[in-house]
Amino acid sequence: MKSKLISIGDEILIGQIVNTNAAFLGDKLFSIGIPVAKTVVIADEETALLSEFEDSLRNYDVTIITGGLGPTHDDITKPVLLKFFKDEYVRDEKVLEHVRNIFKSRNINMPLVNEDQALVPKNSKVIWNVNGTAPGIWIEKENKIFIALPGVPYEMKNMIENEILPELKIRSSSGSGKVYLQKTLLTTGLGESSLNEMIGNVKEIIGESKLAFLPSATGVRLRINTEGIGENEAAEKMNIIENKLRSKINDLIYGYDKEELEKVTGDILTERKQTLSVAESCTGGMISSKIVSVPGSSKYYEGGVCVYSNLEKIKLLNIKEETLKKYGAVSEETAKEMAAGVRYLMSTDFGLSTTGIAGPTGGTGQKPVGLVWIGFSSKEKTYAVSFNFGVNREINIQRASQRALEILRRELLNIEIRF
Amino acid sequence: MKSKLISIGDEILIGQIVNTNAAFLGDKLFSIGIPVAKTVVIADEETALLSEFEDSLRNYDVTIITGGLGPTHDDITKPVLLKFFKDEYVRDEKVLEHVRNIFKSRNINMPLVNEDQALVPKNSKVIWNVNGTAPGIWIEKENKIFIALPGVPYEMKNMIENEILPELKIRSSSGSGKVYLQKTLLTTGLGESSLNEMIGNVKEIIGESKLAFLPSATGVRLRINTEGIGENEAAEKMNIIENKLRSKINDLIYGYDKEELEKVTGDILTERKQTLSVAESCTGGMISSKIVSVPGSSKYYEGGVCVYSNLEKIKLLNIKEETLKKYGAVSEETAKEMAAGVRYLMSTDFGLSTTGIAGPTGGTGQKPVGLVWIGFSSKEKTYAVSFNFGVNREINIQRASQRALEILRRELLNIEIRF
Repeated sequence: MKSKLISIGDEILIGQIVNTNAAFLGDKLFSIGIPVAKTVVIADEETALLSEFEDSLRNYDVTIITGGLGPTHDDITKPVLLKFFKDEYVRDEKVLEHVRNIFKSRNINMPLVNEDQALVPKNSKVIWNVNGTAPGIWIEKENKIFIALPGVPYEMKNMIENEILPELKIRSSSGSGKVYLQKTLLTTGLGESSLNEMIGNVKEIIGESKLAFLPSATGVRLRINTEGIGENEAAEKMNIIENKLRSKINDLIYGYDKEELEKVTGDILTERKQTLSVAESCTGGMISSKIVSVPGSSKYYEGGVCVYSNLEKIKLLNIKEETLKKYGAVSEETAKEMAAGVRYLMSTDFGLSTTGIAGPTGGTGQKPVGLVWIGFSSKEKTYAVSFNFGVNREINIQRASQRALEILRRELLNIEIRF
Repeated sequence: MKSKLISIGDEILIGQIVNTNAAFLGDKLFSIGIPVAKTVVIADEETALLSEFEDSLRNYDVTIITGGLGPTHDDITKPVLLKFFKDEYVRDEKVLEHVRNIFKSRNINMPLVNEDQALVPKNSKVIWNVNGTAPGIWIEKENKIFIALPGVPYEMKNMIENEILPELKIRSSSGSGKVYLQKTLLTTGLGESSLNEMIGNVKEIIGESKLAFLPSATGVRLRINTEGIGENEAAEKMNIIENKLRSKINDLIYGYDKEELEKVTGDILTERKQTLSVAESCTGGMISSKIVSVPGSSKYYEGGVCVYSNLEKIKLLNIKEETLKKYGAVSEETAKEMAAGVRYLMSTDFGLSTTGIAGPTGGTGQKPVGLVWIGFSSKEKTYAVSFNFGVNREINIQRASQRALEILRRELLNIEIRF
């Protein structure tokens, strides 16, 4: 079975709001084996709606329409459904009472226009809307399901979770018994193409399943989608694919799905009761801010220093004046002294540092924009590695921060640096 | 003129990522009078793409396709465009050089597969992608425009703003003479309802134009949309509306459109040759990181300290042990000593500080999760203000950071604090 979403509303089209309803529904429908194959956003226009309903009836098992169910003149989902299915209205007395009660509980006189919210197509099933006045509508024709819901997220979500998903799940599994699984492996340190090359023949690894490379400033996510008859078959397929991928790039994978690198490294530090501090120049507090975004980070994170002038580098972190003079602020030597300096200042097990040219200006022939030195220091060793992250300041800062955390992860897990 | 968006990618359909590209493009196209009339999200499938291209050619003046331009096997936008327009590939030597340079600058050997990124349809115009390896493609047929762009937001946005919008704007205005204007006033410090109450009768202020309240963790944006025949009429309408709004809430407006508070305050500091430092506890580096995100911030930002344990607070910032003992780390007194301490440590004109309970746990009856003290210090005065930003850790950190910068702005401009 496959599904289609129709979101109705100008405010999505002109970018006033982001279509989070579609993301919510996409995720839910995928999880019960009725993946969304198409999402459409259109305005409240009869012709546009009719043509989308036509397409739905021909091509999709389930269509979920959100928005356009309100009581005002520009809400046309209900009348257009009525026209499309050549149906007529009946008044649902229970819905009318519910609408009246909502107004009563808010101490507002119900406007006459809201009475019409109790009108529903005769050949439909009402979906109860606990949180609002517009009922949902479930229509079936030629084995195709149409579901119209209000666009207000918390009204829609409640109806989906409590009434619609349980029913759709029964329809979905009553046939084939197919189970759909999805897993995302998170990598950082290498680009899409380099990863692709290391993985080699993708087809050989995934067979009929799907593998997507999803790049972002913090790394490349590898999303695996597979299916099988029953939970076991699907899980086994997934396992085989993951193991094949791990045999090629195991060391580059730091986590699953929505895990953050700062959480992964934080968990290791918490378990080992080890501590961390950071000295940031070009990343300007981004690494510290990522670390602190994790609840419980106070267990292992002592603090950080953001140094933005040579003077402060010297004063706080005890960088030798000679080092700055001889090698400059953006150099291997300075990065090393920063990492060691902050580790000493904060009395921690590990110290991380960054110094670089974030851009967009300030580069020279020898030290171009994008050059970043990342320093690491522990009791055993202190070193720095250089990177070039390109000319975009924001991306540059993002990449340098993520790479510093990845260096920490590799040190914690004793994995060689290979980037 | 009207436009259509086609977003390509499973990850949007199954709700793994939210379609923020569509919101960005919807906003931009609306602002130049080519509003998006339909947005479609589909998977990387030839049949689906071909049928959408068919619909575009029939019904829309401009179609923007995002995604599916990468170098791997699942990226099919380019070959399907080629097939649809019955075109053939040519190699663009400039693009090839650009791709090679990107790999070179990052010290990576270019995988063979990336050579194909320089292949473009013969009857197309290349749109330069400064931030990535996939070029954009501009095709025109029967007066209809097709534009294919990478799905990576920062690559796509750059191409839209620098190359595509200026060109589309010329096409759009050559017809009716109608000019569409959009302006967003940025406020922070008060919620949507309070602002609404202060503004009063919206209809009276905007007439036939549109005003949208867009709340986020950093404040409420007020977006005004208006139109007129010719630049002058539209601009005058916009002016009148802005002045009416300013007469009610002028002091709450810190900037326009996409201006960031850190940029606004940074500009004032730069102009006055004054300097700033910050001491962060609960915000953990977020304020520092915001400040440093502004190019040129090294002119006025000396640096920051992120203190995450009492020990470090004492050592680095000279907080009195007595203060911590008597009032605790999250207190007015500590916030004041932190702001004054970092100002002294970094020898700056101004010092900002935060100390609070970011959550989700760690609160007490007297000091609940969400309580944040923000400190300010200058030569003339040192004080702290308390807020409660709620139980969500992320939102809490965002709000506290923005509020600290707003306190700085009000001090710089001599505006009384009213929140």
